[in-house]
Amino acid sequence: MSQKKTAITPTRQENFADWYQEVIKAADLAEHSVTRGCMIIKPLGYALWENIQKILDQMIKDTGHENVYFPLLIPLSFLQKEAEHVEGFAKECAVVTHYRLESDGKGGLIPSPEAKLAEPYVIRPTSETIIGDAMASWIHSYKDLPVKINQWANVMRWEMRTRLFLRTSEFLWQEGHTAHASQEEAAEETLDMLDIYEKLATEYLAIPVIKGEKSPAERFPGAVNTYCIEAMMQDGKALQAGTSHFLGQHFSKAHNITFTDKEQQNQLAWTTSWGVSTRLIGALILTHSDDDGLVIPPRIAPTHVILIPVILNDADREKIMTYCDELTHDLKRISYHEGSIRVSIDTKDYRAGVKFWTAVKKGVPVRIEVGCREIDNNALSVSRRDKPAQEKQLLSRDTILSEISSTLDNIQQTLLERATKWRDEKTQEINSLTALETFFEKENNGFAICHFDIESEHEPIVEEKFKAMKLSVRCIPWNQQDTAISKPCIFSGKPINTRVIIARAY
Amino acid sequence: MSQKKTAITPTRQENFADWYQEVIKAADLAEHSVTRGCMIIKPLGYALWENIQKILDQMIKDTGHENVYFPLLIPLSFLQKEAEHVEGFAKECAVVTHYRLESDGKGGLIPSPEAKLAEPYVIRPTSETIIGDAMASWIHSYKDLPVKINQWANVMRWEMRTRLFLRTSEFLWQEGHTAHASQEEAAEETLDMLDIYEKLATEYLAIPVIKGEKSPAERFPGAVNTYCIEAMMQDGKALQAGTSHFLGQHFSKAHNITFTDKEQQNQLAWTTSWGVSTRLIGALILTHSDDDGLVIPPRIAPTHVILIPVILNDADREKIMTYCDELTHDLKRISYHEGSIRVSIDTKDYRAGVKFWTAVKKGVPVRIEVGCREIDNNALSVSRRDKPAQEKQLLSRDTILSEISSTLDNIQQTLLERATKWRDEKTQEINSLTALETFFEKENNGFAICHFDIESEHEPIVEEKFKAMKLSVRCIPWNQQDTAISKPCIFSGKPINTRVIIARAY
Repeated sequence: MSQKKTAITPTRQENFADWYQEVIKAADLAEHSVTRGCMIIKPLGYALWENIQKILDQMIKDTGHENVYFPLLIPLSFLQKEAEHVEGFAKECAVVTHYRLESDGKGGLIPSPEAKLAEPYVIRPTSETIIGDAMASWIHSYKDLPVKINQWANVMRWEMRTRLFLRTSEFLWQEGHTAHASQEEAAEETLDMLDIYEKLATEYLAIPVIKGEKSPAERFPGAVNTYCIEAMMQDGKALQAGTSHFLGQHFSKAHNITFTDKEQQNQLAWTTSWGVSTRLIGALILTHSDDDGLVIPPRIAPTHVILIPVILNDADREKIMTYCDELTHDLKRISYHEGSIRVSIDTKDYRAGVKFWTAVKKGVPVRIEVGCREIDNNALSVSRRDKPAQEKQLLSRDTILSEISSTLDNIQQTLLERATKWRDEKTQEINSLTALETFFEKENNGFAICHFDIESEHEPIVEEKFKAMKLSVRCIPWNQQDTAISKPCIFSGKPINTRVIIARAY
Repeated sequence: MSQKKTAITPTRQENFADWYQEVIKAADLAEHSVTRGCMIIKPLGYALWENIQKILDQMIKDTGHENVYFPLLIPLSFLQKEAEHVEGFAKECAVVTHYRLESDGKGGLIPSPEAKLAEPYVIRPTSETIIGDAMASWIHSYKDLPVKINQWANVMRWEMRTRLFLRTSEFLWQEGHTAHASQEEAAEETLDMLDIYEKLATEYLAIPVIKGEKSPAERFPGAVNTYCIEAMMQDGKALQAGTSHFLGQHFSKAHNITFTDKEQQNQLAWTTSWGVSTRLIGALILTHSDDDGLVIPPRIAPTHVILIPVILNDADREKIMTYCDELTHDLKRISYHEGSIRVSIDTKDYRAGVKFWTAVKKGVPVRIEVGCREIDNNALSVSRRDKPAQEKQLLSRDTILSEISSTLDNIQQTLLERATKWRDEKTQEINSLTALETFFEKENNGFAICHFDIESEHEPIVEEKFKAMKLSVRCIPWNQQDTAISKPCIFSGKPINTRVIIARAY
C-alpha cells in the first residue's frame, strides 16, 4: 500500500515534535533568532497575534479595563518584596548591570566599568511588583477602587530549552492587573477574566478548553488561587492556554496597597492578575494543523479566501486577472462575523500548483482557483482547508458569493467540533494507579480524570511517580467536579471528592 | 488689572517647562517611574498612543509593509559591525550581563556569578543590526526583494536628563526596515515614508511640519541621508517628530545583505529605516495645549464629546441620566471621519463644576452640560476646547446632532491653522550672524531661515557659536529651497544656495 504524499515531512504520526517545527517553517510563521532562546515572529505569525490582540483587547476594554504601559526594567529589590514570588521567578531573569559600553582598546566593546548600576534591574518576567508599587501611590480611598488596567508587552524568562511560540525566553503577552476593595469583587474579577479567555479560545481560536483551578504545585508564585484554561493538543498532551490569578492581599502587603474604606478604616486592597501570550499561536498550530501544514480557523485568519489565478497562456492573463479583481471586490463587500471577508490574490510569479500548495501550507480557510475554463463555464474550483487538499468543488460565482460566509462559519464550527471530539476521545476516567500507568503506556497521552488528594501532591511517592511518568496535575476542572461522589484517591486510597486532570504537558 | 485665573499653574508665559509637566499631571497622561528615566504611561496617554498606532499602522500596511517582531536583546558584537552606528549608540545602552539571580546569603538577591553571559546583550536602542542580520539570510535573489517590514516595539537609550514623552530611557515606537534591489527604489521608499509621517502629523495630530534633510551632524549613525519632519512648539523651539533614513549599502555591507540580480550578478541590497515614537505625544501637548491644560485634536481624541450631567437635586437624577443615555446613543450613530462620534458621560460622584474642569484639563474637544433647565428649554450648554473654557453656546438637541461632526472638523482645522500661524510668525529669514544673534535674543526662540554652508558645520567657529547659543541646524527644508538665489553663508560669507533652519531644539 503506497503512502499518501503529504506537504509536511515528517507527518504527525512519524514525529510530532519535528512535524510542529516543519509546519511553522512551511507557513513561515517564525524562526529562531541569533539571540539565545528568542524568536523572530514573521508576518503571518505576527498577523495571527494582531488578530488575537484585536479580539481580546476589545473584550478587555468592554469589561471596563484600560490599557497602560509600565517600564520594562524592574529594580532588583522589588522582586524580593513578595517571598513566594521571588522563589518562582528569581532563577530565570535577564539582569541589566551596566548602562554604557566602551571600547576594549582592541576594536571591541565591553560594558563600561564606570557605568555599573548601584542596583541592577531585571527585565520584567511579569509586572506585579512594579505595578503594585504604582498602585500603592494611586490608591488612597475606596473611591479610587477598583483599578482595572492591562498592558500589552514583551516579557522575558530565561529558558534553557526553547520551542517556537511554546516556550521562548522573550515572548509577547497581555497582563491585566486589578485592585479591589473587597475579596468577593477581586475573586469575581479573576473568574470573569477566565471566562473571557475561554471565549477567546473556543469562539475564535476554535480550541476547546477546560476551565479549572491549578493545584498548589502549579500555582503562580505569590497567588492564593490560580485558575487556567487547559487544552489538549493533537498528541494528547496538555497545554495551559491562559491563567488568571487571585492574589489575595499578598502583593498589597508587599507593596503597601492600602485604602480608607467607607468607615474611615485603613484596609489592604485585594488584587488579581491574568494573562495570555504568543503561546496561544503554538496552541493554535498544535490543535488544528495537519500533515499538509497550518490550518487557521476563519475568525482568526488574516486571509479568509485566496484566489489563485491559473494562467496557462499569457494571452489569458488580463482576462483572468480582471475576473479575480472583480471577484475580490464582490467578496470584500460580504460581511462575515464582526467584519467582512478578507480576500487576497496570489499574484506571485509561480506555477498555479505551487501557489495552491503554498495556500494549503499557510492554512488559508478557502482557496479558489480561477482559470479560463473555470470562468467560461462559470464553475470555479473551490477547496476548504478543513477537508483533504485535493477535494475540490465546482461552484458558480453566485453560489460562492451567497455561500462564502456560511462556509467560513461551517469551517470554524468543524474545527472546534473536531478538536473537541479528539479531546473527549482521549480523556478517560481513571480509578487506580495501575490504570493510570496503563493509560499512559497504551494510549501514550491523553487526559486522565482521577480522584486525587491534592494535599498529597508533594509526597515523595506522588512526586516520584509523576516525575518518572512525566505527569502533572493540570487542573481541578469545574466541569468534572461531582462532589456527591467520593472515591478513593488513586495514590493514597483515602476517600476524596476532588477530581483532577493528570496529563503530560507542554 | 486682575490676572485671569487658569487651570494650570504656572502658565506658559510664567514657566514653559513647568507648565508642560503640570499639563501632563492635570490630564493624568503619564508619570515618572521608580525605574530611572522611564515613565508609566497612564490610560489617557496610552489611548492617545493607541490612536496614533491605529492610524499609522493602517497607512504602513496600505503601502505594502508587513508587521513583524524581532528580539529585544541584541548581541554586543552586532553593534560593532557598522562603524558609525556603534559610535552613535554605544554610549547609551542598557547591558544585560547575567541570566540568573541568586541569594546573597543576607536575604537579598545578586546576579549569579555562574550565570554570566559569555557575550553580553544590549537592549535594542534600534534594530538595524539584528534585522539586517536576518535580512541577509532571507534575501537571495532579486525575486526576494523588496522586503518591507515594520515593528511596534519598546526601545531603550540610557538618558541622563529625561522629560516625560520627550526624552525617556525607554520609549515606544515603530521602526520600519526595508531592503531594495536598487538605489532609486530605496530612496523613493525613504521619502514615501516621510510623506506618511507628514500626513499623520498634519492631518491627524494637527501639527504643521516642515519636511527636510538633516545636516551631517544630525544624521542617524550609519545613514547616508536622514530626512525628518520638524515642528515648532509653542515656546518657539524645534521638535523632531519623525525621521526616515536612506541607509545606502552601509548596513548591507556590515551584515552581508546580498542578492543575485537578473543578470546573475551578486549585488548588495539598498536599505532604509524610519520611525516615530511616543515623543509625538510630547509634540501634541507642546503644540496645542493652553493655560487650562491639554487640548486634543478631534481626529486623535479618545473621547470626542463628554456629557456632564448637572444634578442639583437627587430627584432629577433619573430624568437627566436618561436624557444623557439617549443623547449618547444618538451621538454614537453619527459618523465622523473614519469612524463615528466617541462619547462618554462623566458619571463620577463630583460636582458638575469639577467635572467641567476635568474635561477641560483632559482636552476633550466638546463638552455638553445637561441639567433640568437645559432639558426643559431644549437648550444644552455646549463648549469647545479650542475656545476659552467659559465660552458656552446654548444649542438645541437637534442642532447639536446635525452640527457635531462639522464642529469637530472645525476644531481640527482651527488647531492646525493656529499652530501654522504661530510657527510662520516665529519664522524669519536671517541673513547675517549679527541678525541671528539678535533674533535669538529678542525673539527668544523661533526658526531662523539662513543661507548656510553645511560643510562648515563642524568648524570651530560654527560649533562654538552654536554651543554658546544652544542652536543647531534642524534641517535643510524643501519648502525653503530656492536654488536660483545664492546668498552668502551667514558664517563664512561664501555664496551658497543651501538654506537651513537654525533653532533651539528639544
